[in-house]
Amino acid sequence: MNATSPARKIRPVLLSGGSGTRLWPLSREGMPKQLLPLVSDLSLLQETAMRVADRLQFSQPIVIANQAHADLVAGQLRGLPGGPADIHLVLEPMGRNTAPAIAVAALLAAADDPQAIILVLPADHLIGDLVGFRQAVEDAGRAAAAGALVTFGIVPDRPETGYGYIRRGEGFAPADGCWRVAGFVEKPDLATAEGFVAGGKHLFNSGMFVLPAARVLEELERHEPGLVPACRQAIAEGRDVAGALRLDAAAFVRAPSISIDYAVMERTADAVVVPVDIGWSDIGSWSALWELTAKDAAGNAVSGDVLLDGASGCHVVSRGATTAVIGIADAVVVVTPDAVLVARRDRVQDVKGIVARLKARSGGGDPSPI
Amino acid sequence: MNATSPARKIRPVLLSGGSGTRLWPLSREGMPKQLLPLVSDLSLLQETAMRVADRLQFSQPIVIANQAHADLVAGQLRGLPGGPADIHLVLEPMGRNTAPAIAVAALLAAADDPQAIILVLPADHLIGDLVGFRQAVEDAGRAAAAGALVTFGIVPDRPETGYGYIRRGEGFAPADGCWRVAGFVEKPDLATAEGFVAGGKHLFNSGMFVLPAARVLEELERHEPGLVPACRQAIAEGRDVAGALRLDAAAFVRAPSISIDYAVMERTADAVVVPVDIGWSDIGSWSALWELTAKDAAGNAVSGDVLLDGASGCHVVSRGATTAVIGIADAVVVVTPDAVLVARRDRVQDVKGIVARLKARSGGGDPSPI
Repeated sequence: MNATSPARKIRPVLLSGGSGTRLWPLSREGMPKQLLPLVSDLSLLQETAMRVADRLQFSQPIVIANQAHADLVAGQLRGLPGGPADIHLVLEPMGRNTAPAIAVAALLAAADDPQAIILVLPADHLIGDLVGFRQAVEDAGRAAAAGALVTFGIVPDRPETGYGYIRRGEGFAPADGCWRVAGFVEKPDLATAEGFVAGGKHLFNSGMFVLPAARVLEELERHEPGLVPACRQAIAEGRDVAGALRLDAAAFVRAPSISIDYAVMERTADAVVVPVDIGWSDIGSWSALWELTAKDAAGNAVSGDVLLDGASGCHVVSRGATTAVIGIADAVVVVTPDAVLVARRDRVQDVKGIVARLKARSGGGDPSPI
Repeated sequence: MNATSPARKIRPVLLSGGSGTRLWPLSREGMPKQLLPLVSDLSLLQETAMRVADRLQFSQPIVIANQAHADLVAGQLRGLPGGPADIHLVLEPMGRNTAPAIAVAALLAAADDPQAIILVLPADHLIGDLVGFRQAVEDAGRAAAAGALVTFGIVPDRPETGYGYIRRGEGFAPADGCWRVAGFVEKPDLATAEGFVAGGKHLFNSGMFVLPAARVLEELERHEPGLVPACRQAIAEGRDVAGALRLDAAAFVRAPSISIDYAVMERTADAVVVPVDIGWSDIGSWSALWELTAKDAAGNAVSGDVLLDGASGCHVVSRGATTAVIGIADAVVVVTPDAVLVARRDRVQDVKGIVARLKARSGGGDPSPI
């Protein structure tokens, strides 16, 4: 069994660069999902930082965020009750997807320790089972110490068509609970997804990784030759501002905007997956958040100054105005000072179309709540 | 026929004292329905004043409003494009229902002209057919000149259970188009209402009247002895403030709070009804307003900064925040800076329950959007 500690502490890397619109109008360009307190009094970024706060298992975290959110992110990390005051904050001048961000983190980690193993965590995911999570990280760390590039695969509880899947192959001998990756599958149709759930060999692609820093840089050098040099220069010519490293924009923009999945995981021969069932959610939509939230007997989840009369299956969030919902079923109602959303719960994915329309019209000079 | 003008101009009396909650959150205690521009750029009060602006048929109107709305009402009447600058504004210190308000108007009108005939109009009704309205007023004026207390009965187009009805009796010989009132009927159940529509003898009780001022005072003296003296004293001890007559509160509060229907119309032997089909609505709910509003091909009526995606049969009104509605059918969405309503269109009557709950909790000192 894996009850003993791994030989080396793992270096957490929190990716907080995202600026999703799927929880609009609560999430905004200036206030992305990971900075919102959605499931507790802490933001998802703070929850993620607390998840790796134990310095027996984890070393100093690196947080990579967009420069536009510098003050918010720094404030949230500083304000962490009992949390790590030792976070290394790195600011991207612009989003370039996950591969450049992970390359920057791997370069910084390898500079501190050439044998460093990094744990890459999107800062906007929820993990309910902390013990299971830490056990899985330990398993993955053992595989990474043996040279593997490890991804976490979520054991599917439903035939989800909104995620990519990982097919597991043979067991990975050097570490318990680890399997070689047999292949990556793009978002499937419903029948295919149902087959995946029944078959037991497919896992949701979670976007969480455990990677030997030197190995991932090596793979990036091979598959995306310009990427690591651009990141190395962005660090070298970056500036320390108030304790945060601001990457150099002219250098960083030369790194291709590509995901770590495309750049490395789908190309390497050494991909390994750790299947996990740890109460994971990427809170990818209002309906996902509704699922996670405590509800009354009629299935309503409410937050803020809300009055219900005959509502059922509704998620009502008000940040400001008194909000009354009468006789409505299965809807999401989100009220903010400058934007309101009323959507059928099974149509919430179309929020992105609304945001796109607002973006399109904001060119005209009108202020737009995006 | 009635093509000739009546011998005497009719004195309009606009009742603007109401403070309904059925269009909450757009209508408020401080901003009642009649002061809102609901169906045009003009408020319902302004529309009503414009309806009686022709000084060939109507003399100087009297507007009776609540003192709490004094500035708003005066501003709206002053701002009337091309409208009457000669309105006599009377301010009630508190609402006492329609009988005291009409008594005050009748006393003022009779002081100017002992033979005065008044046309009582709630300021929050809509009338689509102005020509038909003016013809009906002319008919009613002829009956009033013969001593009748005339009410307008709306020819029912649906088995409405939310209104009282008037049963017409024999024709009233002195005036074309006028009938003696055979009885008043409280709000009926649906089967009864369907019988009323089929039978052709029942009319909605509209709350609009044409009354000889001296006659209505005489009837009030008989049936509610304390009412007219209290109103007379409220006028005598009232003060002129900025061109408006502020009734004396200590006197006016002694007038019983009672409707003109109960106090006079249901008791007098001289009630006459003029059936009309003049595009009347009291805009008594959000669904009634939806019926009156121009709609797109999917049945949506929108006002303000609204984005729709797959909505149908919705009434969406935003006064402020950008409002997105996705995949919702047959709902009313009303957005104001401090209150939001989302209701199924066939449940909008339950808005009053929400307002009652807000009122109940406002006792605790919290500001409430009512």
